[in-house]
Amino acid sequence: MTDQDHAFTEHRWRLPFGEPVDLAAWPTSPPADAGDPGRWDADRQHETKRLARHQEVLFAHDTHALLCVLQGMDSAGKDSAIRKVLSGVNPAGCDVHAFGRPSADELEHDFLWRVHARVPRRGRVAVFNRSHYEDVVTVRVHPELLEAAGLRSRRHLESLWEKRFSAIRAFEHHLADSGIVVVKVFLHLARDEQRKRLLARLDKPHKRWKADPSDVRARAHWDAYQAAWADAIARTHRPWAPWYVIPADDKPYARLQLARLLADTLDRLDLRRPAESEARVAALEAMREALQGED
Amino acid sequence: MTDQDHAFTEHRWRLPFGEPVDLAAWPTSPPADAGDPGRWDADRQHETKRLARHQEVLFAHDTHALLCVLQGMDSAGKDSAIRKVLSGVNPAGCDVHAFGRPSADELEHDFLWRVHARVPRRGRVAVFNRSHYEDVVTVRVHPELLEAAGLRSRRHLESLWEKRFSAIRAFEHHLADSGIVVVKVFLHLARDEQRKRLLARLDKPHKRWKADPSDVRARAHWDAYQAAWADAIARTHRPWAPWYVIPADDKPYARLQLARLLADTLDRLDLRRPAESEARVAALEAMREALQGED
Repeated sequence: MTDQDHAFTEHRWRLPFGEPVDLAAWPTSPPADAGDPGRWDADRQHETKRLARHQEVLFAHDTHALLCVLQGMDSAGKDSAIRKVLSGVNPAGCDVHAFGRPSADELEHDFLWRVHARVPRRGRVAVFNRSHYEDVVTVRVHPELLEAAGLRSRRHLESLWEKRFSAIRAFEHHLADSGIVVVKVFLHLARDEQRKRLLARLDKPHKRWKADPSDVRARAHWDAYQAAWADAIARTHRPWAPWYVIPADDKPYARLQLARLLADTLDRLDLRRPAESEARVAALEAMREALQGED
Repeated sequence: MTDQDHAFTEHRWRLPFGEPVDLAAWPTSPPADAGDPGRWDADRQHETKRLARHQEVLFAHDTHALLCVLQGMDSAGKDSAIRKVLSGVNPAGCDVHAFGRPSADELEHDFLWRVHARVPRRGRVAVFNRSHYEDVVTVRVHPELLEAAGLRSRRHLESLWEKRFSAIRAFEHHLADSGIVVVKVFLHLARDEQRKRLLARLDKPHKRWKADPSDVRARAHWDAYQAAWADAIARTHRPWAPWYVIPADDKPYARLQLARLLADTLDRLDLRRPAESEARVAALEAMREALQGED
Protein backbone atom coordinates (compact mmCIF):
# COMPACT_ATOMS: atom_id res chain seq x y z
CA MET A 1 0.00 0.00 0.00
CA THR A 2 1.48 3.34 -0.99
CA ASP A 3 0.85 6.65 0.68
CA GLN A 4 -1.63 7.72 -1.93
CA ASP A 5 -3.80 4.74 -1.07
CA HIS A 6 -4.38 6.33 2.30
CA ALA A 7 -6.81 8.78 0.75
CA PHE A 8 -9.64 8.85 3.28
CA THR A 9 -13.30 8.64 2.45
CA GLU A 10 -14.61 12.13 1.80
CA HIS A 11 -17.46 12.68 4.18
CA ARG A 12 -19.28 15.65 5.58
CA TRP A 13 -18.30 14.82 9.17
CA ARG A 14 -14.62 14.26 8.60
CA LEU A 15 -12.61 16.93 10.41
CA PRO A 16 -10.25 19.11 8.39
CA PHE A 17 -6.63 18.02 8.67
CA GLY A 18 -4.02 20.16 10.38
CA GLU A 19 -6.42 22.42 12.23
CA PRO A 20 -7.20 22.64 15.93
CA VAL A 21 -10.27 20.65 17.01
CA ASP A 22 -13.04 22.68 18.63
CA LEU A 23 -15.75 20.24 19.68
CA ALA A 24 -17.91 23.03 21.15
CA ALA A 25 -18.19 24.54 17.66
CA TRP A 26 -18.93 21.20 15.97
CA PRO A 27 -22.64 20.35 15.69
CA THR A 28 -24.29 17.74 17.88
CA SER A 29 -27.64 17.89 16.06
CA PRO A 30 -28.51 17.22 12.41
CA PRO A 31 -27.87 20.10 10.00
CA ALA A 32 -30.71 22.07 8.42
CA ASP A 33 -30.22 20.36 5.05
CA ALA A 34 -30.32 16.83 6.49
CA GLY A 35 -33.53 15.93 4.66
CA ASP A 36 -36.64 14.19 5.86
CA PRO A 37 -36.15 12.62 9.32
CA GLY A 38 -38.89 10.14 8.45
CA ARG A 39 -36.55 8.55 5.90
CA TRP A 40 -33.46 8.13 8.06
CA ASP A 41 -34.30 4.66 9.36
CA ALA A 42 -35.15 3.33 5.92
CA ASP A 43 -32.05 4.96 4.42
CA ARG A 44 -29.91 3.40 7.14
CA GLN A 45 -31.35 -0.03 6.34
CA HIS A 46 -30.41 0.54 2.73
CA GLU A 47 -26.85 1.47 3.75
CA THR A 48 -26.62 -1.64 5.95
CA LYS A 49 -27.53 -3.77 2.92
CA ARG A 50 -24.80 -2.01 0.91
CA LEU A 51 -22.36 -2.64 3.75
CA ALA A 52 -23.35 -6.33 3.88
CA ARG A 53 -22.77 -6.72 0.13
CA HIS A 54 -19.40 -4.99 0.28
CA GLN A 55 -18.40 -7.16 3.24
CA GLU A 56 -19.03 -10.30 1.21
CA VAL A 57 -16.67 -9.03 -1.48
CA LEU A 58 -14.11 -8.01 1.16
CA PHE A 59 -14.28 -11.57 2.52
CA ALA A 60 -13.83 -13.22 -0.88
CA HIS A 61 -11.06 -10.80 -1.82
CA ASP A 62 -9.09 -11.39 1.38
CA THR A 63 -6.62 -8.51 0.99
CA HIS A 64 -8.08 -5.82 3.25
CA ALA A 65 -9.96 -5.41 6.51
CA LEU A 66 -12.05 -2.58 7.91
CA LEU A 67 -11.57 -1.42 11.49
CA CYS A 68 -14.06 1.07 12.88
CA VAL A 69 -13.10 2.59 16.22
CA LEU A 70 -16.31 3.86 17.79
CA GLN A 71 -16.16 6.32 20.66
CA GLY A 72 -18.47 8.76 22.41
CA MET A 73 -19.50 9.87 25.87
CA ASP A 74 -21.78 7.62 27.94
CA SER A 75 -25.21 7.25 26.30
CA ALA A 76 -23.94 8.70 23.00
CA GLY A 77 -25.55 5.67 21.36
CA LYS A 78 -22.57 3.44 20.62
CA ASP A 79 -24.26 0.14 21.54
CA SER A 80 -27.48 0.84 19.70
CA ALA A 81 -25.63 2.22 16.66
CA ILE A 82 -23.67 -1.02 16.43
CA ARG A 83 -26.84 -3.07 16.78
CA LYS A 84 -28.78 -1.08 14.19
CA VAL A 85 -25.99 -0.53 11.67
CA LEU A 86 -24.57 -4.05 11.76
CA SER A 87 -27.68 -6.20 12.25
CA GLY A 88 -27.96 -7.42 8.68
CA VAL A 89 -24.26 -7.91 8.07
CA ASN A 90 -23.09 -11.53 8.16
CA PRO A 91 -21.74 -12.12 11.69
CA ALA A 92 -19.25 -14.59 10.21
CA GLY A 93 -17.42 -11.62 8.69
CA CYS A 94 -17.96 -9.08 11.41
CA ASP A 95 -16.37 -8.83 14.87
CA VAL A 96 -17.52 -6.44 17.56
CA HIS A 97 -15.36 -6.04 20.61
CA ALA A 98 -16.20 -3.91 23.62
CA PHE A 99 -13.15 -2.71 25.50
CA GLY A 100 -14.20 -2.26 29.10
CA ARG A 101 -12.19 -1.57 32.20
CA PRO A 102 -8.87 -3.40 31.65
CA SER A 103 -8.48 -6.75 33.40
CA ALA A 104 -5.58 -7.41 35.77
CA ASP A 105 -3.88 -9.34 32.98
CA GLU A 106 -4.37 -6.52 30.48
CA LEU A 107 -2.96 -3.98 32.92
CA GLU A 108 0.24 -6.01 33.06
CA HIS A 109 0.80 -5.18 29.38
CA ASP A 110 1.33 -2.01 27.37
CA PHE A 111 -1.89 -0.18 26.55
CA LEU A 112 -1.96 -1.23 22.88
CA TRP A 113 -1.54 -4.94 23.61
CA ARG A 114 -5.18 -5.90 24.10
CA VAL A 115 -6.22 -3.73 21.17
CA HIS A 116 -3.72 -5.19 18.73
CA ALA A 117 -4.92 -8.68 19.63
CA ARG A 118 -8.41 -7.76 18.35
CA VAL A 119 -7.39 -6.18 15.06
CA PRO A 120 -9.44 -7.85 12.32
CA ARG A 121 -7.97 -10.45 10.06
CA ARG A 122 -8.09 -9.84 6.31
CA GLY A 123 -11.56 -10.03 4.82
CA ARG A 124 -13.36 -8.95 7.98
CA VAL A 125 -15.03 -5.91 9.46
CA ALA A 126 -14.34 -5.15 13.11
CA VAL A 127 -15.90 -2.54 15.32
CA PHE A 128 -14.23 -1.51 18.55
CA ASN A 129 -16.77 -0.27 21.08
CA ARG A 130 -14.32 1.98 22.96
CA SER A 131 -10.64 1.38 22.34
CA HIS A 132 -7.07 2.46 23.08
CA TYR A 133 -8.39 6.03 23.05
CA GLU A 134 -9.72 5.49 26.58
CA ASP A 135 -6.04 5.31 27.58
CA VAL A 136 -5.44 8.88 26.44
CA VAL A 137 -8.82 10.30 27.47
CA THR A 138 -10.39 8.57 30.48
CA VAL A 139 -6.98 7.88 31.97
CA ARG A 140 -5.92 11.48 31.28
CA VAL A 141 -8.98 12.81 33.13
CA HIS A 142 -8.37 10.30 35.93
CA PRO A 143 -4.57 9.90 36.09
CA GLU A 144 -4.90 7.87 39.31
CA LEU A 145 -5.80 4.99 36.96
CA LEU A 146 -2.16 4.94 35.85
CA GLU A 147 -1.16 3.39 39.13
CA ALA A 148 -3.04 0.21 38.28
CA ALA A 149 -1.04 0.11 35.05
CA GLY A 150 2.22 0.16 36.98
CA LEU A 151 2.95 3.80 36.12
CA ARG A 152 3.40 5.19 39.60
CA SER A 153 5.40 8.31 38.83
CA ARG A 154 3.13 11.05 37.59
CA ARG A 155 5.86 13.63 37.40
CA HIS A 156 6.23 13.40 33.66
CA LEU A 157 2.61 13.15 32.68
CA GLU A 158 2.77 15.47 29.69
CA SER A 159 5.54 13.43 28.15
CA LEU A 160 3.49 10.29 28.83
CA TRP A 161 0.60 11.56 26.71
CA GLU A 162 3.02 12.67 24.00
CA LYS A 163 4.50 9.19 23.94
CA ARG A 164 1.07 7.56 23.82
CA PHE A 165 -0.13 9.77 20.95
CA SER A 166 3.06 9.01 19.09
CA ALA A 167 2.58 5.28 19.70
CA ILE A 168 -1.04 5.45 18.51
CA ARG A 169 -0.09 7.28 15.31
CA ALA A 170 2.62 4.73 14.55
CA PHE A 171 0.33 1.79 15.38
CA GLU A 172 -2.48 3.04 13.16
CA HIS A 173 -0.07 3.85 10.36
CA HIS A 174 1.23 0.30 10.55
CA LEU A 175 -2.33 -1.06 10.39
CA ALA A 176 -3.09 1.06 7.34
CA ASP A 177 0.11 -0.10 5.68
CA SER A 178 -1.02 -3.67 6.38
CA GLY A 179 -4.24 -3.33 4.44
CA ILE A 180 -6.46 -2.45 7.37
CA VAL A 181 -8.65 0.53 6.66
CA VAL A 182 -8.99 2.47 9.91
CA VAL A 183 -12.06 4.66 10.42
CA LYS A 184 -12.48 6.46 13.73
CA VAL A 185 -15.86 7.81 14.74
CA PHE A 186 -16.75 10.06 17.64
CA LEU A 187 -20.49 10.21 18.34
CA HIS A 188 -20.81 13.82 19.44
CA LEU A 189 -23.46 14.38 22.09
CA ALA A 190 -24.66 17.57 23.82
CA ARG A 191 -24.36 17.60 27.58
CA ASP A 192 -28.07 18.21 28.08
CA GLU A 193 -29.02 15.44 25.67
CA GLN A 194 -26.93 13.06 27.80
CA ARG A 195 -28.91 14.15 30.86
CA LYS A 196 -32.20 13.41 29.10
CA ARG A 197 -30.98 9.98 28.01
CA LEU A 198 -29.70 8.99 31.43
CA LEU A 199 -33.06 9.99 32.94
CA ALA A 200 -34.96 8.11 30.22
CA ARG A 201 -32.98 4.96 30.97
CA LEU A 202 -34.35 4.96 34.50
CA ASP A 203 -37.93 5.01 33.25
CA LYS A 204 -37.71 2.32 30.57
CA PRO A 205 -37.76 -1.21 32.01
CA HIS A 206 -35.81 -2.65 29.07
CA LYS A 207 -33.10 0.02 29.39
CA ARG A 208 -32.89 0.32 33.16
CA TRP A 209 -30.34 -2.48 33.50
CA LYS A 210 -27.85 -0.26 31.67
CA ALA A 211 -28.17 2.60 34.18
CA ASP A 212 -24.98 3.13 36.15
CA PRO A 213 -24.87 5.69 38.98
CA SER A 214 -21.22 6.40 38.16
CA ASP A 215 -22.38 7.97 34.88
CA VAL A 216 -23.74 10.90 36.90
CA ARG A 217 -20.43 11.39 38.69
CA ALA A 218 -18.65 11.37 35.33
CA ARG A 219 -20.77 14.34 34.26
CA ALA A 220 -18.90 16.47 36.79
CA HIS A 221 -15.84 15.99 34.55
CA TRP A 222 -17.66 16.79 31.28
CA ASP A 223 -15.44 19.71 30.29
CA ALA A 224 -12.26 17.81 31.09
CA TYR A 225 -13.47 14.92 28.93
CA GLN A 226 -14.35 17.20 26.02
CA ALA A 227 -10.92 18.86 26.22
CA ALA A 228 -9.16 15.49 26.38
CA TRP A 229 -11.16 14.21 23.40
CA ALA A 230 -10.45 17.32 21.33
CA ASP A 231 -6.74 16.92 21.97
CA ALA A 232 -6.70 13.17 21.36
CA ILE A 233 -8.61 13.61 18.11
CA ALA A 234 -6.39 16.46 16.89
CA ARG A 235 -3.19 14.58 17.63
CA THR A 236 -4.25 11.35 15.91
CA HIS A 237 -6.30 12.68 12.97
CA ARG A 238 -4.28 11.66 9.96
CA PRO A 239 -5.18 10.71 6.36
CA TRP A 240 -4.38 7.04 7.07
CA ALA A 241 -6.63 6.95 10.16
CA PRO A 242 -9.05 9.87 10.05
CA TRP A 243 -11.61 10.94 12.63
CA TYR A 244 -15.27 11.52 11.79
CA VAL A 245 -17.23 13.50 14.39
CA ILE A 246 -20.89 12.65 13.86
CA PRO A 247 -23.68 14.66 15.48
CA ALA A 248 -25.33 12.20 17.85
CA ASP A 249 -28.20 14.05 19.51
CA ASP A 250 -30.54 12.40 17.00
CA LYS A 251 -30.03 8.64 16.96
CA PRO A 252 -31.56 7.76 13.57
CA TYR A 253 -29.50 10.52 11.93
CA ALA A 254 -26.26 9.42 13.60
CA ARG A 255 -26.82 5.76 12.68
CA LEU A 256 -27.51 6.66 9.06
CA GLN A 257 -24.29 8.68 8.91
CA LEU A 258 -22.28 5.82 10.43
CA ALA A 259 -23.79 3.18 8.12
CA ARG A 260 -23.16 5.33 5.06
CA LEU A 261 -19.60 6.09 6.12
CA LEU A 262 -18.76 2.39 6.51
CA ALA A 263 -20.45 1.41 3.24
CA ASP A 264 -18.75 4.28 1.38
CA THR A 265 -15.39 3.32 2.85
CA LEU A 266 -15.64 -0.24 1.54
CA ASP A 267 -17.06 1.03 -1.74
CA ARG A 268 -14.01 3.26 -2.17
CA LEU A 269 -11.68 0.25 -1.91
CA ASP A 270 -13.16 -0.80 -5.25
CA LEU A 271 -12.35 -4.45 -4.63
CA ARG A 272 -12.82 -6.78 -7.54
CA ARG A 273 -12.31 -10.46 -7.69
CA PRO A 274 -8.78 -11.06 -8.98
CA ALA A 275 -8.50 -12.85 -12.32
CA GLU A 276 -8.05 -16.61 -12.06
CA SER A 277 -4.61 -17.95 -12.89
CA GLU A 278 -4.29 -20.37 -15.77
CA ALA A 279 -3.31 -23.09 -13.31
CA ARG A 280 -6.48 -22.55 -11.28
CA VAL A 281 -8.69 -22.54 -14.36
CA ALA A 282 -7.13 -25.86 -15.39
CA ALA A 283 -7.56 -27.35 -11.89
CA LEU A 284 -11.22 -26.35 -11.81
CA GLU A 285 -11.82 -27.82 -15.26
CA ALA A 286 -10.25 -31.09 -14.08
CA MET A 287 -12.57 -30.92 -11.07
CA ARG A 288 -15.56 -30.51 -13.34
CA GLU A 289 -14.55 -33.49 -15.46
CA ALA A 290 -14.01 -35.68 -12.41
CA LEU A 291 -17.44 -34.80 -11.02
CA GLN A 292 -19.19 -35.25 -14.37
CA GLY A 293 -17.42 -38.57 -14.93
CA GLU A 294 -18.55 -40.09 -11.64
CA ASP A 295 -21.51 -41.90 -13.09
CA MET B 1 -27.07 -25.71 37.06
CA THR B 2 -28.47 -29.07 38.08
CA ASP B 3 -28.76 -32.14 35.94
CA GLN B 4 -32.41 -31.55 35.24
CA ASP B 5 -31.49 -28.23 33.62
CA HIS B 6 -29.81 -30.21 30.91
CA ALA B 7 -33.14 -31.09 29.39
CA PHE B 8 -32.51 -30.55 25.69
CA THR B 9 -34.79 -28.71 23.32
CA GLU B 10 -37.32 -31.15 21.91
CA HIS B 11 -37.01 -31.00 18.18
CA ARG B 12 -37.94 -33.22 15.29
CA TRP B 13 -34.33 -33.66 14.17
CA ARG B 14 -32.83 -34.53 17.53
CA LEU B 15 -31.53 -38.09 17.48
CA PRO B 16 -32.93 -40.54 20.04
CA PHE B 17 -30.56 -41.09 22.96
CA GLY B 18 -28.88 -44.43 23.57
CA GLU B 19 -29.45 -45.86 20.12
CA PRO B 20 -26.99 -46.55 17.31
CA VAL B 21 -26.77 -43.79 14.72
CA ASP B 22 -27.60 -44.81 11.15
CA LEU B 23 -27.05 -41.79 8.95
CA ALA B 24 -28.02 -43.73 5.80
CA ALA B 25 -31.51 -44.18 7.28
CA TRP B 26 -31.84 -40.56 8.36
CA PRO B 27 -33.46 -38.25 5.80
CA THR B 28 -31.44 -35.73 3.79
CA SER B 29 -34.49 -34.12 2.17
CA PRO B 30 -37.50 -32.37 3.75
CA PRO B 31 -40.26 -34.68 5.02
CA ALA B 32 -43.62 -34.95 3.27
CA ASP B 33 -45.36 -32.91 5.96
CA ALA B 34 -42.86 -30.02 5.83
CA GLY B 35 -45.45 -27.56 4.56
CA ASP B 36 -45.26 -24.99 1.79
CA PRO B 37 -41.67 -24.54 0.51
CA GLY B 38 -42.63 -21.04 -0.59
CA ARG B 39 -42.92 -20.03 3.06
CA TRP B 40 -39.59 -21.37 4.33
CA ASP B 41 -37.54 -18.22 3.67
CA ALA B 42 -40.14 -15.96 5.30
CA ASP B 43 -40.52 -18.32 8.24
CA ARG B 44 -36.75 -18.40 8.68
CA GLN B 45 -36.65 -14.58 8.76
CA HIS B 46 -39.30 -14.70 11.48
CA GLU B 47 -37.20 -17.17 13.47
CA THR B 48 -34.11 -14.98 13.06
CA LYS B 49 -36.06 -12.06 14.56
CA ARG B 50 -37.08 -14.28 17.49
CA LEU B 51 -33.45 -15.32 17.90
CA ALA B 52 -32.33 -11.66 17.85
CA ARG B 53 -34.85 -10.74 20.56
CA HIS B 54 -33.86 -13.68 22.74
CA GLN B 55 -30.19 -12.81 22.28
CA GLU B 56 -30.81 -9.30 23.66
CA VAL B 57 -32.33 -10.81 26.79
CA LEU B 58 -29.49 -13.32 27.05
CA PHE B 59 -27.07 -10.39 26.90
CA ALA B 60 -28.83 -8.37 29.58
CA HIS B 61 -29.27 -11.42 31.79
CA ASP B 62 -25.59 -12.40 31.62
CA THR B 63 -25.91 -15.87 33.14
CA HIS B 64 -25.89 -18.15 30.10
CA ALA B 65 -24.37 -18.45 26.66
CA LEU B 66 -25.38 -20.43 23.60
CA LEU B 67 -22.83 -22.44 21.66
CA CYS B 68 -23.88 -23.96 18.35
CA VAL B 69 -21.43 -26.43 16.84
CA LEU B 70 -22.21 -26.59 13.13
CA GLN B 71 -20.86 -29.46 11.06
CA GLY B 72 -21.55 -31.08 7.72
CA MET B 73 -19.75 -32.39 4.66
CA ASP B 74 -18.27 -29.92 2.16
CA SER B 75 -21.01 -27.86 0.49
CA ALA B 76 -23.61 -28.94 3.08
CA GLY B 77 -24.43 -25.24 3.41
CA LYS B 78 -22.71 -24.30 6.66
CA ASP B 79 -21.46 -20.89 5.53
CA SER B 80 -24.68 -19.82 3.91
CA ALA B 81 -26.78 -21.13 6.81
CA ILE B 82 -24.74 -18.99 9.19
CA ARG B 83 -25.12 -15.95 6.94
CA LYS B 84 -28.87 -16.40 6.48
CA VAL B 85 -29.77 -17.46 10.01
CA LEU B 86 -27.61 -14.91 11.84
CA SER B 87 -27.82 -11.86 9.57
CA GLY B 88 -30.25 -9.86 11.68
CA VAL B 89 -28.82 -10.82 15.06
CA ASN B 90 -26.73 -8.09 16.70
CA PRO B 91 -23.09 -8.87 15.86
CA ALA B 92 -22.09 -7.36 19.21
CA GLY B 93 -23.64 -10.41 20.88
CA CYS B 94 -22.76 -13.03 18.33
CA ASP B 95 -19.42 -14.64 17.53
CA VAL B 96 -18.79 -16.89 14.56
CA HIS B 97 -15.56 -18.77 14.39
CA ALA B 98 -14.44 -20.98 11.53
CA PHE B 99 -12.01 -23.69 12.58
CA GLY B 100 -9.85 -24.43 9.57
CA ARG B 101 -6.76 -26.53 9.22
CA PRO B 102 -4.90 -26.13 12.55
CA SER B 103 -1.99 -23.69 12.57
CA ALA B 104 1.52 -24.79 13.62
CA ASP B 105 0.88 -23.14 17.00
CA GLU B 106 -2.46 -24.92 17.43
CA LEU B 107 -0.90 -28.27 16.57
CA GLU B 108 1.53 -27.77 19.47
CA HIS B 109 -1.45 -27.94 21.85
CA ASP B 110 -4.04 -30.55 22.76
CA PHE B 111 -6.93 -30.71 20.28
CA LEU B 112 -9.44 -28.94 22.58
CA TRP B 113 -7.16 -25.98 23.29
CA ARG B 114 -8.10 -23.76 20.36
CA VAL B 115 -11.77 -24.64 20.76
CA HIS B 116 -11.92 -23.82 24.46
CA ALA B 117 -10.36 -20.42 23.75
CA ARG B 118 -13.37 -19.57 21.54
CA VAL B 119 -16.13 -20.67 23.91
CA PRO B 120 -18.58 -17.76 24.23
CA ARG B 121 -18.61 -15.53 27.26
CA ARG B 122 -21.86 -15.23 29.19
CA GLY B 123 -24.59 -13.34 27.38
CA ARG B 124 -23.39 -14.26 23.91
CA VAL B 125 -24.22 -16.61 21.07
CA ALA B 126 -21.33 -18.36 19.35
CA VAL B 127 -21.37 -20.54 16.27
CA PHE B 128 -18.45 -22.82 15.49
CA ASN B 129 -18.16 -23.45 11.77
CA ARG B 130 -16.43 -26.82 12.10
CA SER B 131 -14.98 -27.65 15.50
CA HIS B 132 -13.16 -30.22 17.64
CA TYR B 133 -15.23 -32.85 15.85
CA GLU B 134 -12.87 -32.58 12.88
CA ASP B 135 -10.29 -34.14 15.23
CA VAL B 136 -12.35 -37.31 15.60
CA VAL B 137 -13.68 -37.43 12.03
CA THR B 138 -11.35 -35.90 9.43
CA VAL B 139 -8.32 -36.99 11.41
CA ARG B 140 -9.81 -40.46 11.84
CA VAL B 141 -10.31 -40.80 8.09
CA HIS B 142 -6.82 -39.42 7.50
CA PRO B 143 -4.76 -40.65 10.47
CA GLU B 144 -1.56 -39.41 8.79
CA LEU B 145 -2.66 -35.97 10.07
CA LEU B 146 -1.83 -37.17 13.58
CA GLU B 147 1.87 -36.90 12.80
CA ALA B 148 1.60 -33.12 12.50
CA ALA B 149 0.04 -33.15 15.97
CA GLY B 150 3.07 -34.91 17.41
CA LEU B 151 1.25 -38.26 17.68
CA ARG B 152 3.64 -40.40 15.73
CA SER B 153 2.69 -43.80 17.06
CA ARG B 154 -0.45 -45.08 15.42
CA ARG B 155 -0.32 -48.45 17.10
CA HIS B 156 -3.04 -47.60 19.60
CA LEU B 157 -5.39 -45.66 17.37
CA GLU B 158 -8.60 -47.17 18.73
CA SER B 159 -7.70 -46.15 22.27
CA LEU B 160 -6.85 -42.67 20.94
CA TRP B 161 -10.38 -42.17 19.60
CA GLU B 162 -11.83 -43.54 22.86
CA LYS B 163 -9.78 -41.01 24.80
CA ARG B 164 -10.83 -38.17 22.52
CA PHE B 165 -14.52 -39.04 22.75
CA SER B 166 -14.21 -39.24 26.51
CA ALA B 167 -12.45 -35.86 26.59
CA ILE B 168 -15.14 -34.31 24.39
CA ARG B 169 -17.95 -35.63 26.58
CA ALA B 170 -16.28 -34.29 29.73
CA PHE B 171 -15.48 -30.94 28.07
CA GLU B 172 -19.05 -30.43 26.87
CA HIS B 173 -20.46 -31.51 30.23
CA HIS B 174 -18.26 -28.92 31.90
CA LEU B 175 -19.51 -26.25 29.48
CA ALA B 176 -23.13 -27.15 30.19
CA ASP B 177 -22.45 -27.04 33.93
CA SER B 178 -21.00 -23.58 33.41
CA GLY B 179 -24.17 -22.16 31.89
CA ILE B 180 -23.24 -22.70 28.27
CA VAL B 181 -26.03 -24.30 26.31
CA VAL B 182 -24.43 -26.60 23.76
CA VAL B 183 -26.34 -27.42 20.58
CA LYS B 184 -24.66 -29.56 17.94
CA VAL B 185 -25.98 -29.62 14.40
CA PHE B 186 -25.03 -31.89 11.53
CA LEU B 187 -26.29 -30.68 8.16
CA HIS B 188 -27.02 -33.99 6.49
CA LEU B 189 -26.40 -33.99 2.74
CA ALA B 190 -26.89 -36.70 0.14
CA ARG B 191 -23.80 -37.67 -1.82
CA ASP B 192 -25.39 -36.84 -5.15
CA GLU B 193 -26.59 -33.46 -3.92
CA GLN B 194 -22.99 -32.65 -3.00
CA ARG B 195 -21.92 -33.49 -6.55
CA LYS B 196 -24.56 -31.12 -7.96
CA ARG B 197 -23.45 -28.32 -5.64
CA LEU B 198 -19.77 -28.71 -6.41
CA LEU B 199 -20.54 -28.56 -10.11
CA ALA B 200 -22.80 -25.54 -9.62
CA ARG B 201 -20.01 -23.69 -7.83
CA LEU B 202 -17.89 -23.92 -10.95
CA ASP B 203 -20.54 -22.23 -13.03
CA LYS B 204 -21.48 -19.36 -10.74
CA PRO B 205 -18.95 -16.50 -10.84
CA HIS B 206 -19.77 -15.37 -7.26
CA LYS B 207 -19.32 -18.93 -5.91
CA ARG B 208 -16.39 -20.07 -8.02
CA TRP B 209 -13.79 -18.68 -5.58
CA LYS B 210 -14.98 -21.28 -3.05
CA ALA B 211 -14.31 -24.23 -5.37
CA ASP B 212 -11.49 -26.42 -4.12
CA PRO B 213 -10.24 -29.34 -6.22
CA SER B 214 -9.48 -31.29 -3.03
CA ASP B 215 -13.24 -31.50 -2.40
CA VAL B 216 -13.45 -34.00 -5.26
CA ARG B 217 -10.70 -36.14 -3.81
CA ALA B 218 -12.51 -36.12 -0.45
CA ARG B 219 -15.54 -37.67 -2.16
CA ALA B 220 -13.53 -40.86 -2.61
CA HIS B 221 -13.69 -41.21 1.19
CA TRP B 222 -17.43 -40.46 1.47
CA ASP B 223 -18.37 -43.73 3.17
CA ALA B 224 -15.47 -43.49 5.62
CA TYR B 225 -16.56 -39.95 6.54
CA GLN B 226 -20.18 -41.01 7.03
CA ALA B 227 -19.10 -43.90 9.26
CA ALA B 228 -16.79 -41.64 11.29
CA TRP B 229 -19.56 -39.06 11.70
CA ALA B 230 -22.11 -41.68 12.79
CA ASP B 231 -19.70 -42.96 15.42
CA ALA B 232 -18.65 -39.50 16.62
CA ILE B 233 -22.29 -38.42 16.91
CA ALA B 234 -23.35 -41.58 18.74
CA ARG B 235 -20.51 -41.36 21.24
CA THR B 236 -21.07 -37.69 22.11
CA HIS B 237 -24.87 -37.41 21.89
CA ARG B 238 -25.89 -36.65 25.45
CA PRO B 239 -28.75 -34.66 27.02
CA TRP B 240 -26.34 -31.87 28.02
CA ALA B 241 -24.93 -31.58 24.50
CA PRO B 242 -27.32 -33.18 22.02
CA TRP B 243 -26.93 -33.65 18.29
CA TYR B 244 -29.53 -32.52 15.77
CA VAL B 245 -29.19 -34.06 12.31
CA ILE B 246 -30.98 -31.71 9.91
CA PRO B 247 -31.82 -32.72 6.33
CA ALA B 248 -29.73 -30.38 4.20
CA ASP B 249 -30.51 -31.23 0.59
CA ASP B 250 -32.92 -28.28 0.54
CA LYS B 251 -31.18 -25.14 1.78
CA PRO B 252 -34.22 -23.00 2.73
CA TYR B 253 -35.65 -25.92 4.72
CA ALA B 254 -32.37 -26.61 6.52
CA ARG B 255 -31.89 -22.93 7.41
CA LEU B 256 -35.42 -22.68 8.77
CA GLN B 257 -34.85 -25.73 10.94
CA LEU B 258 -31.57 -24.33 12.26
CA ALA B 259 -33.03 -20.89 13.00
CA ARG B 260 -36.01 -22.39 14.79
CA LEU B 261 -33.81 -24.72 16.81
CA LEU B 262 -31.63 -21.85 18.04
CA ALA B 263 -34.60 -19.59 18.83
CA ASP B 264 -36.42 -22.42 20.62
CA THR B 265 -33.31 -23.25 22.61
CA LEU B 266 -33.01 -19.70 23.96
CA ASP B 267 -36.78 -19.54 24.47
CA ARG B 268 -36.59 -22.65 26.61
CA LEU B 269 -34.10 -21.00 28.96
CA ASP B 270 -36.99 -18.74 29.95
CA LEU B 271 -34.65 -15.96 31.00
CA ARG B 272 -36.23 -13.06 32.82
CA ARG B 273 -34.62 -9.94 34.10
CA PRO B 274 -33.72 -10.55 37.74
CA ALA B 275 -35.52 -8.36 40.27
CA GLU B 276 -33.59 -5.25 41.31
CA SER B 277 -32.11 -5.28 44.79
CA GLU B 278 -33.26 -2.60 47.24
CA ALA B 279 -29.76 -1.12 47.17
CA ARG B 280 -29.86 -0.77 43.39
CA VAL B 281 -33.32 0.78 43.43
CA ALA B 282 -32.06 3.34 45.96
CA ALA B 283 -28.91 4.07 43.94
CA LEU B 284 -30.93 4.62 40.78
CA GLU B 285 -33.33 6.95 42.62
CA ALA B 286 -30.37 8.98 43.90
CA MET B 287 -29.13 9.09 40.30
CA ARG B 288 -32.49 10.44 39.16
CA GLU B 289 -32.48 13.14 41.82
CA ALA B 290 -28.93 14.21 40.95
CA LEU B 291 -29.81 14.49 37.26
CA GLN B 292 -33.07 16.32 37.89
CA GLY B 293 -31.35 18.71 40.33
CA GLU B 294 -28.68 19.79 37.86
CA ASP B 295 -30.45 22.90 36.71
